[in-house]
Amino acid sequence: MDKNNFSQHINQNRITINDPFWSKYIELVRDEVIPYQYEALNDRIDGAAKSYCINNFVKAGKIAKDISNGIIPPVYPEDKWEYTDDNCDKNSFHGWVFQDSDIYKWIEAVGFSLIHNPDNELEEKADQCIDLICNAQLENGYLDTLYIINDTSKIFTNLKDKHELYCFGHMAEAAVSYYNATGKRKFLDSTCKFADLICNTFNDNNIKGYPGHEIAEMALVKLYKATGKKRYLDTADFFIRQRGSKPYYFDMERGYDRKDDSLDYFYNQAHVEPVNQDEAVGHAVRGVYLYSGMADVARELVNEKLFDACEKIWDNIENKKLYVTGGIGATVDGEAFSFNYDLPNDLAYSETCASIGLIFFARRMLEIEPNRKYADVMERALYNCVLSGMAEDGKSFFYVNPLEVLPEASHKDSRKRHIKTVRQKWFGCACCPPNLARLICSIGEYSFTENDNTVFSHLFVGGRISTRHGEITVNSSYLDNGNVSFSIKPNESFSFAIRIPKWCRNFSISKDYELIDGYAYIKIDSECDIDVCFEIKPRIVCCSNLVRANIGKACVMRGPVVYCAEEIDNGKNLQLLRLSHEKELDYDGEFIIANGFKEKINEDLYYDFDGKTKEKECQIKLIPYCKWGNRGENEMTVYLNLR
Amino acid sequence: MDKNNFSQHINQNRITINDPFWSKYIELVRDEVIPYQYEALNDRIDGAAKSYCINNFVKAGKIAKDISNGIIPPVYPEDKWEYTDDNCDKNSFHGWVFQDSDIYKWIEAVGFSLIHNPDNELEEKADQCIDLICNAQLENGYLDTLYIINDTSKIFTNLKDKHELYCFGHMAEAAVSYYNATGKRKFLDSTCKFADLICNTFNDNNIKGYPGHEIAEMALVKLYKATGKKRYLDTADFFIRQRGSKPYYFDMERGYDRKDDSLDYFYNQAHVEPVNQDEAVGHAVRGVYLYSGMADVARELVNEKLFDACEKIWDNIENKKLYVTGGIGATVDGEAFSFNYDLPNDLAYSETCASIGLIFFARRMLEIEPNRKYADVMERALYNCVLSGMAEDGKSFFYVNPLEVLPEASHKDSRKRHIKTVRQKWFGCACCPPNLARLICSIGEYSFTENDNTVFSHLFVGGRISTRHGEITVNSSYLDNGNVSFSIKPNESFSFAIRIPKWCRNFSISKDYELIDGYAYIKIDSECDIDVCFEIKPRIVCCSNLVRANIGKACVMRGPVVYCAEEIDNGKNLQLLRLSHEKELDYDGEFIIANGFKEKINEDLYYDFDGKTKEKECQIKLIPYCKWGNRGENEMTVYLNLR
Repeated sequence: MDKNNFSQHINQNRITINDPFWSKYIELVRDEVIPYQYEALNDRIDGAAKSYCINNFVKAGKIAKDISNGIIPPVYPEDKWEYTDDNCDKNSFHGWVFQDSDIYKWIEAVGFSLIHNPDNELEEKADQCIDLICNAQLENGYLDTLYIINDTSKIFTNLKDKHELYCFGHMAEAAVSYYNATGKRKFLDSTCKFADLICNTFNDNNIKGYPGHEIAEMALVKLYKATGKKRYLDTADFFIRQRGSKPYYFDMERGYDRKDDSLDYFYNQAHVEPVNQDEAVGHAVRGVYLYSGMADVARELVNEKLFDACEKIWDNIENKKLYVTGGIGATVDGEAFSFNYDLPNDLAYSETCASIGLIFFARRMLEIEPNRKYADVMERALYNCVLSGMAEDGKSFFYVNPLEVLPEASHKDSRKRHIKTVRQKWFGCACCPPNLARLICSIGEYSFTENDNTVFSHLFVGGRISTRHGEITVNSSYLDNGNVSFSIKPNESFSFAIRIPKWCRNFSISKDYELIDGYAYIKIDSECDIDVCFEIKPRIVCCSNLVRANIGKACVMRGPVVYCAEEIDNGKNLQLLRLSHEKELDYDGEFIIANGFKEKINEDLYYDFDGKTKEKECQIKLIPYCKWGNRGENEMTVYLNLR
Repeated sequence: MDKNNFSQHINQNRITINDPFWSKYIELVRDEVIPYQYEALNDRIDGAAKSYCINNFVKAGKIAKDISNGIIPPVYPEDKWEYTDDNCDKNSFHGWVFQDSDIYKWIEAVGFSLIHNPDNELEEKADQCIDLICNAQLENGYLDTLYIINDTSKIFTNLKDKHELYCFGHMAEAAVSYYNATGKRKFLDSTCKFADLICNTFNDNNIKGYPGHEIAEMALVKLYKATGKKRYLDTADFFIRQRGSKPYYFDMERGYDRKDDSLDYFYNQAHVEPVNQDEAVGHAVRGVYLYSGMADVARELVNEKLFDACEKIWDNIENKKLYVTGGIGATVDGEAFSFNYDLPNDLAYSETCASIGLIFFARRMLEIEPNRKYADVMERALYNCVLSGMAEDGKSFFYVNPLEVLPEASHKDSRKRHIKTVRQKWFGCACCPPNLARLICSIGEYSFTENDNTVFSHLFVGGRISTRHGEITVNSSYLDNGNVSFSIKPNESFSFAIRIPKWCRNFSISKDYELIDGYAYIKIDSECDIDVCFEIKPRIVCCSNLVRANIGKACVMRGPVVYCAEEIDNGKNLQLLRLSHEKELDYDGEFIIANGFKEKINEDLYYDFDGKTKEKECQIKLIPYCKWGNRGENEMTVYLNLR
């Protein structure tokens, strides 16, 4: 870990996005997703699962007031994962245990959006939400509506399964985003009050707990950076150091004397101390949130051993547990990483949130060590799995992003019930849509980083960026034709480093450069233009033959974009299609047309093979993976059989 | 349905098996399986799951005596699937709801075994068991230890989930077998008493119930044939006619007023009336037991419509839902048939019992209509999936028979937890081992059938058979070299029909014959020898390209025997092996050696395809599928990638 290599992302308010691809997504989030999600949080969307989120804050606000007036509130059970009209009192908490986080994710997205597009009406709505939130906070700073409404005596008694520290993490991320956008301190101060309570409860009192669902670690580091209060960083470090140490805190808190611990807590990445972990395991979202926090702490405290663990885990994901789409989490059971090279296409979980978390992890690694491998994965996840999570109209969402879909299987096979064939309006457990919104609104932060000597260009999102070394204007038609031009007005001489994506075999840069770890470093002494051209053309991509699901198969990519075949373009039984590497792949600006073959259906269930396959030539029409499922329910596959 | 085509199997006591392949299996069952299972029934096997079966009969015997003396027994809940030391009173029923059936299956196997090998000691044990069973019977004929021990007031109140009629079915099959072997009437009379109660309760009183787990249908027909009592046949018919009619009996018995019945009772094949079914659905064992009973009733009552349904269901299984090994049931969820062409290799359920049930169904169809398609499937199931169910030493068993095994997946992937990598000693739910025992001991009954004009040879098991048309001695080295010779001493002229298996492309018969529906019919007028030679050589077999799991793959068969590759012979990563159809397949009397290729491992998770595959020539060593898993835990696959 070389501190000279560290870089820092450039804050939203120094970036103006103007990009043929990304601008429309940002507008979609601003015009559709954020307003839609606000309605959802308020339970005003017909036919969508109820959120109960706002309503819980209203209830908790009344109870907080009662408590401060010395009125003892009624007690309800706090023993469920999901509280519904059917299983609990109407005055008690409703929704999932982590329901509070939805409003925080919405506010975080609003913050990012307001930076680009001031909007008084939206800001007013957010302020009202913040008032609601702050009203619900107890005098000691505690804020989780489940426990405030149902039973304050049980606060912090089940870190393993309940999500108080998780909700706090999202609160902190939202508070920093909203403060950055508006300068208003109310929400940030309220968050710090809760953060202080957490620091007191755990780190200061040496109660060796840690979050069951990680995120507080990275959120505390973010809060530390926003406020300068070192105790937040120390508590993040404390959580990471306690995690997985024995006796397990999760055992102790439930009074369990463990005889055999060989198989447990992998789900929570709490099987061993993070510093000794070298494989991505368990619930995938939790995993990448932890790894992001580990990277944050490793960097801030210059902890080499912790960074080594991050690197090992990264390599494990990148080389053994990553779908070609940038998806992670191969099994629905525990929404989890499976074992190495187990990447089934039709059973994938590949949650939108997990890919978003992988991008968080990638950015942190990249800011520690400028190596294209991190940015390549970030880009892969972004253009494929993440964008697949949202419909073209921004009104419906995939939680799970499979690489192969047969509608009949989703309907009839319980093993594939998690594979939805069309996007859903809103989930009761609505982590993915607001997570998408906050990522897309902050895409600029992923595009550039800087340090004392260098500005790095990781993604090629068009726009204007004000770095500390000068102004940079990016004109990007990256996905269209691979062309990106940079107009640079430096304040001082510096080095400009452009990522050369690994997918790109040929490229040209209009200036001299030196290539280090996949970045072309260019000396900038004066105002200049740099024209970069990445050769971008469709190509056939194979998967390691250690992945059993993909033997004899391949997919088509163009640049970072993975393509897929849908039934609507290619007929039923996509498994009959056969890709030929001897034929051209044509790109027409929208589709890729592969000249391939289609096998004739063989009705005999079993037959002696005579060496011949009956087939006819055909054109296979492919669309970007992220656009699948926008034309009704139909078969889809990323991998095609290779002829 | 042409009654002239009907044939009847030849009873055990007219058959003496003397076969290089089957004799050793029959000995194994006699010397190992039957004694081992007796110990298991008595809970005397270290490390095996407890059966509790005998013990339940002891308990029930005491209670039956108390009841007859006017003493009211204590009541225990009867609301579980499995009753263990942990969840119930020690004096209550223990084990699975269907635990009684284990002793019946054991007695049935003993009956078949005694016919071939009189054994006083074994017969004495069986007689003691029968005494225990009869002691437990209530005065009105009722006999199911769960309800006798736990709560007689609940008898026949939950036909859907509890297994009283299922246990009765196995009781009847055992009673007929034991009566045929020994001539002793005690068990048969006791069974008839229970059967009479069932006829009274349901058919006579028009209570429109039917078994949740089928088997009583075919068992009642068997009992009808053994006793001549037509009411047993009528009740079998009644059960089939009531099944699936609306309002559903299963709803009525639990007092449930159903609004939407679109998706239910497929599991029990009770979604529509059997006569209107055309697809094999639901729990596979239940399915084939029902279909067997349907065929029995269709034949005995010459019910054309019911036979049509049987044929449609048969065709659906044979052409769309059958593994190449003769396994059925593609999903662990409900141990059930999946949708058409969904035949995953590594997720298969393919229960041993289901294949045994398929053989029951096949035999019944064959006895209605002599068409080789039924015998071909019978043979396929027998030599592959069924025999896979038992270890070479007869002491451990597979319940599930997958076509692909990766031990790491079985240990780490919850979706594959049902895929055991090595055979288990004994199951608490021990349906498969005793089912195997009873099938193997009665193999002769599957080999020949006869009617007024014809003797049919379906399988080619060696031995001596006394048919009503004459004596036939079979010398068979069918699996060794395809040679089978028949020495026939006729009492009268008749037609001898020899099945020509569909797998066999070339064959010779030393007599003139006429080929009808896959059978070679030979006129027998006088004592003669018939020599048949089936060309039997290894061949590459492909699967319909509608089966997604097997695109680009093939397996190797020799005659009816499916072969597989194991890691112990071929190294790890069996997916790297590639079968070549251009190279010879060599059979050395034990193994098949395929001259194929092995891909080099490609460590890059994703890479641009250049049209080349790195591979080297190799020999792929294949063993019969039924022998897999006898050399410790290792990878196994039936399907290999085709080059």
